[in-house]
Amino acid sequence: MESIKVIGFDADDTLWVNGSYFLEAEKTFCELLSDYMTPDELSHTLYQTEVKNLKWYGYGVMAYTLSLVETAIAVSQGKIPASVIQTILELGRRMLSQPVQLYPGVKETLPALQQHYKLIVITKGDLLDQQRKLKKSGLMPYFHHLEVVSEKQSSNYLKLINVMGIQPSEFLMVGNSLKSDIIPVLTIGGQAVHIPQKEVWQQEESGKPSLPYIEIDSMEQLGALFQL
Amino acid sequence: MESIKVIGFDADDTLWVNGSYFLEAEKTFCELLSDYMTPDELSHTLYQTEVKNLKWYGYGVMAYTLSLVETAIAVSQGKIPASVIQTILELGRRMLSQPVQLYPGVKETLPALQQHYKLIVITKGDLLDQQRKLKKSGLMPYFHHLEVVSEKQSSNYLKLINVMGIQPSEFLMVGNSLKSDIIPVLTIGGQAVHIPQKEVWQQEESGKPSLPYIEIDSMEQLGALFQL
Repeated sequence: MESIKVIGFDADDTLWVNGSYFLEAEKTFCELLSDYMTPDELSHTLYQTEVKNLKWYGYGVMAYTLSLVETAIAVSQGKIPASVIQTILELGRRMLSQPVQLYPGVKETLPALQQHYKLIVITKGDLLDQQRKLKKSGLMPYFHHLEVVSEKQSSNYLKLINVMGIQPSEFLMVGNSLKSDIIPVLTIGGQAVHIPQKEVWQQEESGKPSLPYIEIDSMEQLGALFQL
Repeated sequence: MESIKVIGFDADDTLWVNGSYFLEAEKTFCELLSDYMTPDELSHTLYQTEVKNLKWYGYGVMAYTLSLVETAIAVSQGKIPASVIQTILELGRRMLSQPVQLYPGVKETLPALQQHYKLIVITKGDLLDQQRKLKKSGLMPYFHHLEVVSEKQSSNYLKLINVMGIQPSEFLMVGNSLKSDIIPVLTIGGQAVHIPQKEVWQQEESGKPSLPYIEIDSMEQLGALFQL
């Protein structure tokens, strides 16, 4: 940890609750469409639609809302009433206006880390939504920069590391996704701390990295890693 | 022009055609909904919905598609068949896969400018869509950086100028929108070249700036400004 100059944080499901808002929306969606399919079948079809749309829509709530509408029309074979689609639009809108619930330890750890390191947020999703959440979180004063990327690939991390004028070994990433936050950073010679969450979106599932990294249970343990 | 080190380019309707794809989609939308309202009424209602949604969805094709769906449901008082909503989703998808049509002079001017200046793209819209368009345009080799912002305010330009380590007077912005590309840059002491387009989205309309700027008819005239 001695060489670290910059710490990058994933946002959704690392700093604040996110996946459970998607799960809640999906539950409501399954209830709305219960005349046409079982919840399991609906979840499966929705997931397939989301993955098919990723290359066009990317990540985030707007992409999700569009996939919900498309799935509703498909599984009802075009019979779904417009009023239900309206309810789906409102589901999406509600997700955009959810309160930001920080994970335990976030509010205490960031100010301590900021004394010694430059902190940045690196996240996928809608730019506007992520800016809004960061603002609502009250965490903005601790971060030097918010970077929203379309994919968390090694090349994107490397570009950011270059812009900051540091070496990969001076960068540490903290996040909940092995696939997006840990593996691409280890691959380019960076360091990484994994904080697993119970709910992982299938698309983010991944095998364990072959390179060494640190795993902790919660943000509350992060300060101790830096002897803070 | 002597002090300029970095030239920023707006993307949509400055480097490549964009607004006319929106107009085409709106025309199809008005035909789809012709049972419920006249084209003028529909355009007006759609515009109101888009503006209301800006603070939630921001700019871009996904935001536009969601506003089309919402408007269709509202103007039909919930009677619109799901099949028409499916057609609207496809309209949006088609916009995301349109070919990139460069304006005359773009392909010739950028390589010449790149010999003397650092060139960047500064645009609103969906991050993924803008990255895709830049890739498809073949212009990527000429640009040092693509910056997608949620709003083109002076503060965002200033942040970018600071990151690049230059003075505002060393920055020149080229774009079609007085409101987004010209006024906020002049305000912070930058320079600006306006290339008007026929079709300006109402939301981008603005009075003339009180500070001096250059206006040209097309990208073909940009090189001459720099004696290239």
